[in-house]
Amino acid sequence: MQIGFVIFDQITQLDFTGPLQVLSRLPEVKIHIIAKTTEPVMSDCNLGLIPTTTFEECPPLDVLCIPGGFGVTEAMQDRETILFVQAQAKTAKYITSVCTGAFVLGAAGLLQGKRATTHWAYHELLALTGAVVEPARVVRDGNLFTGGGVTAGIDFALTLVAEISGEATAQAIQLGLEYDPSPPYNAGAPDLAPPQITQMLRQFYDGKSEGFEDQLRALMKDEI
Amino acid sequence: MQIGFVIFDQITQLDFTGPLQVLSRLPEVKIHIIAKTTEPVMSDCNLGLIPTTTFEECPPLDVLCIPGGFGVTEAMQDRETILFVQAQAKTAKYITSVCTGAFVLGAAGLLQGKRATTHWAYHELLALTGAVVEPARVVRDGNLFTGGGVTAGIDFALTLVAEISGEATAQAIQLGLEYDPSPPYNAGAPDLAPPQITQMLRQFYDGKSEGFEDQLRALMKDEI
Repeated sequence: MQIGFVIFDQITQLDFTGPLQVLSRLPEVKIHIIAKTTEPVMSDCNLGLIPTTTFEECPPLDVLCIPGGFGVTEAMQDRETILFVQAQAKTAKYITSVCTGAFVLGAAGLLQGKRATTHWAYHELLALTGAVVEPARVVRDGNLFTGGGVTAGIDFALTLVAEISGEATAQAIQLGLEYDPSPPYNAGAPDLAPPQITQMLRQFYDGKSEGFEDQLRALMKDEI
Repeated sequence: MQIGFVIFDQITQLDFTGPLQVLSRLPEVKIHIIAKTTEPVMSDCNLGLIPTTTFEECPPLDVLCIPGGFGVTEAMQDRETILFVQAQAKTAKYITSVCTGAFVLGAAGLLQGKRATTHWAYHELLALTGAVVEPARVVRDGNLFTGGGVTAGIDFALTLVAEISGEATAQAIQLGLEYDPSPPYNAGAPDLAPPQITQMLRQFYDGKSEGFEDQLRALMKDEI
C-alpha cells in the first residue's frame, strides 16, 4: 500500500505528523512524503521536513493525504500542486485531508457536492468549494475522508486504518501510541472553551482568513 | 523562553512533534531542535528532521525536553548526549521527557528518587533508573515533567503550557489545535484494549526490550 502526504512551506506540522505516525504503522505500507522538490520544507514550528519524493517521481498512491496550515493559501493556488492532486485522485483508493488541507482538495474540484470537514474556524469558508460542510472530527463520503483541525488528524488516521486493515489493527496501533487522551482542559472546540477564549481565537482566524477568502473565491470562479 | 528538544536517529517522531506543536505556540518562545550535528535526523516514519542547532552551539534552555523511540537505546548510551543533558539540566527551569525519553533522563542520573512516567510497556524498566514510577499520562515532581507514551506528549505539553503561561494560554492553544479528542476505539491503554491486543503488544515490546534491559542495567551500575 502506497501512502503519500503532500507537504509545503508553512504546513502545520502536526496536521501531517499525527496521521503519519498512525499510518506508518500499517503493515506492508510504503510512506511517500511529497513536495515539488526534495529540498527541505519549512513547517510552522521551526522544524524543517525532508521530502522523500517529488510530484514528478511519486508513484500512483493508494492513499493521498493533504495536511493543512497557513501555507495552504499558496498551495491551493499552485498549479503544479493542483495538477498533482487531480492526477493522483483519479486512481487513489482514498482521497483525504486534515485541517485546512481540505481547501487544496476543494481547489482541485474534488469536494463538489461531497460531505467534508476542516478546522472549525474555516467551516463556513469550506462551503465555497462546493462541499457540504459537516462540523465533525472525521467525515467520510465514499472514498473521501476529511479530518477536522490539527489533532483531529489522529482520529482521522485511526478511522482510515480501521477501514484499510480492520478494527484489530487500529486498536493495536492506538495502544502502541498510548492514545487514551486526557486533555487538561475541556477547551478543544469552540462551544467547549470559555467564551472569551473562543472569541479571541475567532478574531485571530478572521484576521488570517480575510485575504484567503478572496483568493478562494477567485479560484473557485476559475474552476467553474 | 528557550525551549529545546533533543532529537536522535529512530526517534518516534510524534513523541517530539506533538509537544513541539503545542509549545511552539507559547508567546515569546524560541524553539531549538538539537542534535549532535545539523545533519538531518531520521525518524521512525521515513521522515527526516532538520536540527536547528547542536549540543555545542545550543544556548542554556529554560525547558529541556527528551522525546523517546527505539533510538533511545543508543541515545542513553551516548556520552555526548548524556553530558549535554546533564549540563542543561543544571540550569533548566523544567526538565522533561515524553515516552521512553525518560530513560535518557534516567541514564543522566536525573530520575533518582523522583516520581516519573514513560510508555506503558516500559513502566517496570523505568524503576531501574531509580525513578518512582507512576502509571499516568503526565507526572510532575518539582521541575521534572514526564509524559507517557507517544500521544501523551500532547497532554504533557498542554500541562506544561499552563504551568509556564497560565490556564488561558493552554486553553487557547488547545482550541487552536482543535484538541477535543474522539478516538474511534477505547483501546489506548493496556487495561482498556481487548486482552488479545494487549497481549500481542506486550509480546512485541518484550521482544524489543530484552537487550535494552541489559544495557540499561549496565549503564545504571556505571552511574552509581
